[in-house]
Amino acid sequence: MINIAILGFGVIGSGVAETLEKRRDRIAKAAGDEINIKYICDLRDFSSHPLKDRFVSDFGVILGDPEVSIVAEMIGGLHPAYDFSLAAIEAGKSVVTSNKVVVAAKGDELQKAASEHGVSYLYEASVGGAVPIIRAINDSLAGCEIEEIEGILNGTTNYILARMDEAGLTMEEALKEAQSLGYAEAKPDADISGGDACRKICILAAAAFGTLIDSDDVKITGIEGVTRETISKAKGEGCTVKLIARAARSEDGSISLGVSPKEISLDDPLASVNGVYNAVRLRVKDVGDMMFYAKGAGALPTASAVVADIIDAAKKKTSPAVWTRA
Amino acid sequence: MINIAILGFGVIGSGVAETLEKRRDRIAKAAGDEINIKYICDLRDFSSHPLKDRFVSDFGVILGDPEVSIVAEMIGGLHPAYDFSLAAIEAGKSVVTSNKVVVAAKGDELQKAASEHGVSYLYEASVGGAVPIIRAINDSLAGCEIEEIEGILNGTTNYILARMDEAGLTMEEALKEAQSLGYAEAKPDADISGGDACRKICILAAAAFGTLIDSDDVKITGIEGVTRETISKAKGEGCTVKLIARAARSEDGSISLGVSPKEISLDDPLASVNGVYNAVRLRVKDVGDMMFYAKGAGALPTASAVVADIIDAAKKKTSPAVWTRA
Repeated sequence: MINIAILGFGVIGSGVAETLEKRRDRIAKAAGDEINIKYICDLRDFSSHPLKDRFVSDFGVILGDPEVSIVAEMIGGLHPAYDFSLAAIEAGKSVVTSNKVVVAAKGDELQKAASEHGVSYLYEASVGGAVPIIRAINDSLAGCEIEEIEGILNGTTNYILARMDEAGLTMEEALKEAQSLGYAEAKPDADISGGDACRKICILAAAAFGTLIDSDDVKITGIEGVTRETISKAKGEGCTVKLIARAARSEDGSISLGVSPKEISLDDPLASVNGVYNAVRLRVKDVGDMMFYAKGAGALPTASAVVADIIDAAKKKTSPAVWTRA
Repeated sequence: MINIAILGFGVIGSGVAETLEKRRDRIAKAAGDEINIKYICDLRDFSSHPLKDRFVSDFGVILGDPEVSIVAEMIGGLHPAYDFSLAAIEAGKSVVTSNKVVVAAKGDELQKAASEHGVSYLYEASVGGAVPIIRAINDSLAGCEIEEIEGILNGTTNYILARMDEAGLTMEEALKEAQSLGYAEAKPDADISGGDACRKICILAAAAFGTLIDSDDVKITGIEGVTRETISKAKGEGCTVKLIARAARSEDGSISLGVSPKEISLDDPLASVNGVYNAVRLRVKDVGDMMFYAKGAGALPTASAVVADIIDAAKKKTSPAVWTRA
């Protein structure tokens, strides 16, 4: 039996627990051993939850328990998520995460620590929800040279732009609709500004090119300036508007990153990526274009990516590489 | 150093050798050790090839060399490819393959043998060329329930249908064009009839559902009956015609498979899969739709999938499951 701890029992953390309980046998078969949730660390009161006996508020309990070999970090934000992850790795535990803030800011450090301690630091769920893009880059394309990455990586802005296009809504109307459906947060600034998509393209670029670039150094244009006129002009040209995050490596090895709204031709597969779906297109030397498409958010879609990493950590898959810093 | 042997030096076999030589350092880093092509087994004369000193015509040389730990089978056809694969596994060597005929007919037996001998039998390249769909099913979705698979799995028929649609060609004209461009073989029967797509959907269904169904038991309709009228009728309804392979598992566990031309709405992402591209869409319980898209044929795209499996075999990734037989 492999004992794990879940840190953070929000939308994704509870989705992971639900998936692990619901698919216990299937996951045990895939992992080669039963996965047991020994602890769930959250400060809130879950005393009426079916898993109530697993809850602890003190991370030290998990850190000090040698039976826990995998920690799934789904707290979000930089602190204490980063500190807990590093401490877990230094205590010889593998860490899997859905936390794009930590991976984009400290992924290189945590990979280095994991490599030194012979454990895994896996981050499939930090980009693109259910889109298995990290595994595609790290495993399926391990022998290939990726030249360019283009992605629709933020479901909130993609929903807003699609509704402005198909229903002629203003941005304010589309945002309100998205908020009422739970597709946008009350404070959607990081989505609207492109900051969320920026962190994700930094992570994808690091996976593909081996170099982590600080998200503060990336030129970002959000969707604030997109109006109904922008959309109808694009329509007149056989296009639709999408917030595109892009990373490319040129022949000389230099890496360029950017996030901005772009007109996408309707016969481009990216044009039909609607709602909360995310998509990533890779241009790969000698292989050509590849595209990956799935739900970019939501408890259970994102949990599928976390659970795949838990299974890999259980099989002692080590971190594929340690990123350097730009 | 990890010594491998390449069986069959046709389009894919030579693409694998080219990739392994060209990306030696990158692949060594990913595999954790240098990959050396010790032998290439082919009956033809390659005495002026740069790798001429590696060629052998007798498979027994490879079988009897304990230094060879991985065999990449790209001979095609059932015999002797199956026999060589089984013998290699029984001699304690991992086998990776691009051979859909062997995987669809004997995948379960070879997995069982691999499991008994503690080696890998990996088959990413047998379906969808560069589309990393086997890894997505076996690794990324290891904890998930796949409900349905739909795919455009044959580049030849997809090219023909696309040219009939966009250029108004007859099937004969489109087939001739495909042949002149190298997208169709001189004897394209297995493509046109749907037989090739059928083998591939049998492999995908086995990976997703754990049960290998005999391709002879699947109802197939090829594209022979598709005329310019079929295409223009579809166009009038806002659709295009694609040869769709489909597999589904119902609530009671029964599996249904089929291959036939279908009208696909132009706003469906599958509609924009043109030319020699392949695409696979999965419907996954609790996760929703996912789509994967890449070149379905060609030496270097397919080689990318073989090389990914060689890297995994070098890292001693074992076969994920042994299929049962329907």
